[in-house]
Amino acid sequence: LRKTVLVASRIIGEPELSRLAKNARVFSSWKMDESEIEAILPEIDVLIVSSWPSFLDKNSLPRMKRLKFMQSILVGVDHIPFRDLPENVTVASNAGAYSSEVAEHAWGLILAAEKKIVEHDAKIREGAKALGEFADDASEIGVLRGKTIGIVGYGGIGRAVSDYAEAFGMKVLAFGRNSKKSTDRSLLTGSQGLNRLLRQSDVVLLSIPLTQATLGLIGGRELSTMKENATLVNVARGDLVNQRALYDHLKSHPGFKYATDAWWYKNGHESLETDYPFASLKNFIGTPHTSGPTSVHTGRPGALAADNVLLYLGGKVPKNLVNGREYVGMSL
Amino acid sequence: LRKTVLVASRIIGEPELSRLAKNARVFSSWKMDESEIEAILPEIDVLIVSSWPSFLDKNSLPRMKRLKFMQSILVGVDHIPFRDLPENVTVASNAGAYSSEVAEHAWGLILAAEKKIVEHDAKIREGAKALGEFADDASEIGVLRGKTIGIVGYGGIGRAVSDYAEAFGMKVLAFGRNSKKSTDRSLLTGSQGLNRLLRQSDVVLLSIPLTQATLGLIGGRELSTMKENATLVNVARGDLVNQRALYDHLKSHPGFKYATDAWWYKNGHESLETDYPFASLKNFIGTPHTSGPTSVHTGRPGALAADNVLLYLGGKVPKNLVNGREYVGMSL
Repeated sequence: LRKTVLVASRIIGEPELSRLAKNARVFSSWKMDESEIEAILPEIDVLIVSSWPSFLDKNSLPRMKRLKFMQSILVGVDHIPFRDLPENVTVASNAGAYSSEVAEHAWGLILAAEKKIVEHDAKIREGAKALGEFADDASEIGVLRGKTIGIVGYGGIGRAVSDYAEAFGMKVLAFGRNSKKSTDRSLLTGSQGLNRLLRQSDVVLLSIPLTQATLGLIGGRELSTMKENATLVNVARGDLVNQRALYDHLKSHPGFKYATDAWWYKNGHESLETDYPFASLKNFIGTPHTSGPTSVHTGRPGALAADNVLLYLGGKVPKNLVNGREYVGMSL
Repeated sequence: LRKTVLVASRIIGEPELSRLAKNARVFSSWKMDESEIEAILPEIDVLIVSSWPSFLDKNSLPRMKRLKFMQSILVGVDHIPFRDLPENVTVASNAGAYSSEVAEHAWGLILAAEKKIVEHDAKIREGAKALGEFADDASEIGVLRGKTIGIVGYGGIGRAVSDYAEAFGMKVLAFGRNSKKSTDRSLLTGSQGLNRLLRQSDVVLLSIPLTQATLGLIGGRELSTMKENATLVNVARGDLVNQRALYDHLKSHPGFKYATDAWWYKNGHESLETDYPFASLKNFIGTPHTSGPTSVHTGRPGALAADNVLLYLGGKVPKNLVNGREYVGMSL
């Protein structure tokens, strides 16, 4: 019996829809009206989502009685309502689909912060006239060669950044959720491992999934463990960092820098509207979550997600399965 | 007979002064008053300079009858008045002293431009509220992997950048003043070589000395040879690029980006005061020549310059000798 797939993300383009249609009955939510979607929900075996579709609320989700497999277009699956999903629904992340682009962006944020590119460009735009005015600033500019980067979350992004770091002559420390996973370097684990990484690193990169265990991973205690002039870069999720603790730390440690492409959730959605006026701080740099979307234009996220759904449809074990229990208890 | 060295740069610190003093009579200009300097000029065999000292004007320079060797603290020697120097004065650059720091800065400028970090951070500071406003912008964000970088000037900086580029999965084209110099890759040379590099590169880095031959190297014709959405990065000297041609090109090609740490000369000095309002353009990024000064804090520029002077004092051939004739006819 052919399975039925509901595609609720336009990142799955026509080539992928055709590939899927050879192996399943395929519906695209954006080609249907609300009542058509409602009617089809009980027949859906496989769901493909990027941001969580508004048509799947607490009333409609339980009507998906046949749902067994959900493929995320995003790498992070923290937006999926695991507590409302039956335990027999398997969820796959799209890990690896954005690694190279997000890693490039992360490196850009690191250098923008270390080299004070944003701050100095702004001074020039505001009319700075004398090169000499900046003479002292050069002493505050960070040099990466010989320094240590701590990579928190050693997946596709973390590995790519680690390659860059080695080309730049940096020492790499990497923290992972568990050390059992075979990797190309020994990982620091547990709270002791994280503390060691935070204490020894000049630059710390957050590239770890947001789960119940990593929510607020970086709070006041962790920030004060870090070096006074360290740079913290976040290309994962805003809520890995405690917003208030970060704001206080940036205010009281002008040499500490935070550069982020990820923003805190507000009413369930990532938002540029922060609870504290970060954008008024010189030691804060923000980009509007542009690292991942760049990848969409490569076609890779849609293609990899479709590949994974085809594995499932072919009776094989899909890649990047996530453990839903890591997400159930989160409250954002 | 011990030679006499006049140190006219405070980048030569006490450790280097001591090393020099073991092999020569050493004077430090900042420890002397004007009349003392005037009195000693005819005895000086070796001069160490960074920016050109104001006490050496057209009247005093000819009084340095014994001068045979001049060591620059800077890599670029375009500020040295070769036309007023006797032909038997040998001049050495300080090539290599800043390579790693300048290369890091260059990579920061490339990523800041490609990832629109400066532009997007500014939008957020100005109060942008919705992440969605930036959705279209992601399509304009550059991805380095798989692209081509053209490196114009393949010395210490160019080589370091080429290592980074390979770690980022880029193809590298390199242009050099001559192909005879043994290097680790085949260099493009001549105007045909430069044209090929400009035509094929997505990112072009200027890391070549400013000489009579490279003054205005990038003018209107060269800019229009480049790809429409290319990024041009300058970590060498402002005057490699024709200021008016660049301004016109940036205005008429909004997808073209110029990111620079080097500024045009004005009345003989590098200056943030440009002839055209570059700082009003979104596709311009500027930093106030902070790439090199960063190195000073490593102590390397002073140490390498002293090493080279000690080679000369020991009767050996110093490194990084420059051909003064390449500079004589320059008019800035």
